[in-house]
Amino acid sequence: MKKTLLAALLSVVGMHCAVAAEPIDPIQPVKVENPALVNLGKMLFFDPRLSRSGFISCNSCHNLATGGVDNLKTSIGDRWAQGPINSPTVLNSFGQIAQFWDGRAKTLEEQAAGPIANPLEMASTHEMAVKVIASIPGYAKYFKAAFGDAGVTIDRITEAMAAFEKTLVTPNSRFDKWLKGNKKALTKQELAGYQLFKSSGCTMCHNGEKVGGSSFQKMGLVRPYETTNTAEGVKAVSGRDQDRMTFKVPILRNVELTYPYFHDGEAATLEKAVEVMGDVQLGRRYTEKETAQIVAFLKTLTGDQPKITYPVLPPSSAATPAFDPWAPAKK
Amino acid sequence: MKKTLLAALLSVVGMHCAVAAEPIDPIQPVKVENPALVNLGKMLFFDPRLSRSGFISCNSCHNLATGGVDNLKTSIGDRWAQGPINSPTVLNSFGQIAQFWDGRAKTLEEQAAGPIANPLEMASTHEMAVKVIASIPGYAKYFKAAFGDAGVTIDRITEAMAAFEKTLVTPNSRFDKWLKGNKKALTKQELAGYQLFKSSGCTMCHNGEKVGGSSFQKMGLVRPYETTNTAEGVKAVSGRDQDRMTFKVPILRNVELTYPYFHDGEAATLEKAVEVMGDVQLGRRYTEKETAQIVAFLKTLTGDQPKITYPVLPPSSAATPAFDPWAPAKK
Repeated sequence: MKKTLLAALLSVVGMHCAVAAEPIDPIQPVKVENPALVNLGKMLFFDPRLSRSGFISCNSCHNLATGGVDNLKTSIGDRWAQGPINSPTVLNSFGQIAQFWDGRAKTLEEQAAGPIANPLEMASTHEMAVKVIASIPGYAKYFKAAFGDAGVTIDRITEAMAAFEKTLVTPNSRFDKWLKGNKKALTKQELAGYQLFKSSGCTMCHNGEKVGGSSFQKMGLVRPYETTNTAEGVKAVSGRDQDRMTFKVPILRNVELTYPYFHDGEAATLEKAVEVMGDVQLGRRYTEKETAQIVAFLKTLTGDQPKITYPVLPPSSAATPAFDPWAPAKK
Repeated sequence: MKKTLLAALLSVVGMHCAVAAEPIDPIQPVKVENPALVNLGKMLFFDPRLSRSGFISCNSCHNLATGGVDNLKTSIGDRWAQGPINSPTVLNSFGQIAQFWDGRAKTLEEQAAGPIANPLEMASTHEMAVKVIASIPGYAKYFKAAFGDAGVTIDRITEAMAAFEKTLVTPNSRFDKWLKGNKKALTKQELAGYQLFKSSGCTMCHNGEKVGGSSFQKMGLVRPYETTNTAEGVKAVSGRDQDRMTFKVPILRNVELTYPYFHDGEAATLEKAVEVMGDVQLGRRYTEKETAQIVAFLKTLTGDQPKITYPVLPPSSAATPAFDPWAPAKK
């Protein structure tokens, strides 16, 4: 009897350990709690009227057709401004340790408020964004459905956007199928890549259900990372010198789609990104074969992309402030 | 007997006349003949990699979230260029007498080739567009499904885009319901607006199933139209002085969504557009009440907007030319 119990216990512990032994967890599709809020958030996410010009929407740089990014080194902002940093993906972005490369926003709500008012991005103001959205009669019913009344505030705008963004989860990647027990889901090369990804230390940072996004790390841990990009990382938030070049560890889900890589977008290919990471973070020069294995593994992290019905936005009214993309810049 | 026959004939003629008497026809949903071609066209329509910068797609200025236009006076192009003319809607655009305000393209296929290579719009070249699309491995299966093989040419790209655009029809407007016999579909004010629209001559040009798009007309027929916009209209195509300021009559379906109005985008509201049209085309000053009636009628032309599932685009490869939005301009 005792022996059987022990065997059972060991078996449970064994199973638990087998599961817990993988540093990456499958990602789960999201449960939508307030569909009206999500729908409003989707409309706002695609609405270019949140920008000064009336041309740039959240989706311009976090394009859901292309992995939730713009596939540019750094993003194009108002008046073709050259953004300071690479656009991180909006896919699976909910629940990270923080938002932005330097973690300066705690939540998606807080993050969403940033680009609207950033002069190098959408270049509007929160006051103007509220004024514009409130001037569009067709939005009233969507705010009412989401919040109970038609009042427009910046907090409601960002709450709705964040609710939409929370739904942008990409389950069912081949790697998740493998994690869940389908051992045929990966090829030998991909599996070898995963073993190497673990054994050489990548999973120290790239772990959990997002394969990243849960910690900060210095870029250039064992060897300085050379870049002309002037972003200082967490130092810009903390003011502390030791936080220079410390960035949030990016999410590797759908990494095949989210090129180019790093905060400066300087790695154009996955091969280059793996090579540089090995070198500056782990002090390891991967062989060509090893790099190919890791890249093959990384490509198994592409999940089902969110199915988006493109929104139809309500028209502006005579009360909507006019957009003039070429208006002289304010000093 | 003879009397009955005559009555029957008169009745048939009468019915026919009653239908034929309306200068506007209902618009019909489109039959998709080659869904694979349409799907490929949708992907290309949303793909920003057809532009020099990798940032601007067809949808940037013909946004299907906002009536197939950008709601700007003139469009933003490569490097924030100020376009010369207002973006016409892509909705219901198939089968017009020609494409572009000056009619310089005969077909949607021919039109689609224009902006890709226009330095003030997408600023790429046809050669580059083909090179980019051909370098994206994930497109091969879509070209194969659409054309039988994976070959990429500019003609195939524009043929696919045009096939998609042909599906962008907006049936079931309230006015169409009224045309089809539902006399409750319009209010008294809207109906009065329609009667005035007909009786004051608007339907001389704005007729047929698109309520426009079937003829060219001089802007400023009875009184010169004053504008700082330098577009010369058909003269730019024909070279003939008498074609100066002659433009294609724009489609009025969904006109509620396609503000601002005219080739120069100078009329911000429908009220203003109706007022100016009455003045310079018809020599008529509408009263405030009349203008409100016509505007009310025009708003009944908004139909069901196309239901678009946002495409997921295949990633670039190492062979894809790099995009550098801020590269020095070529002389």
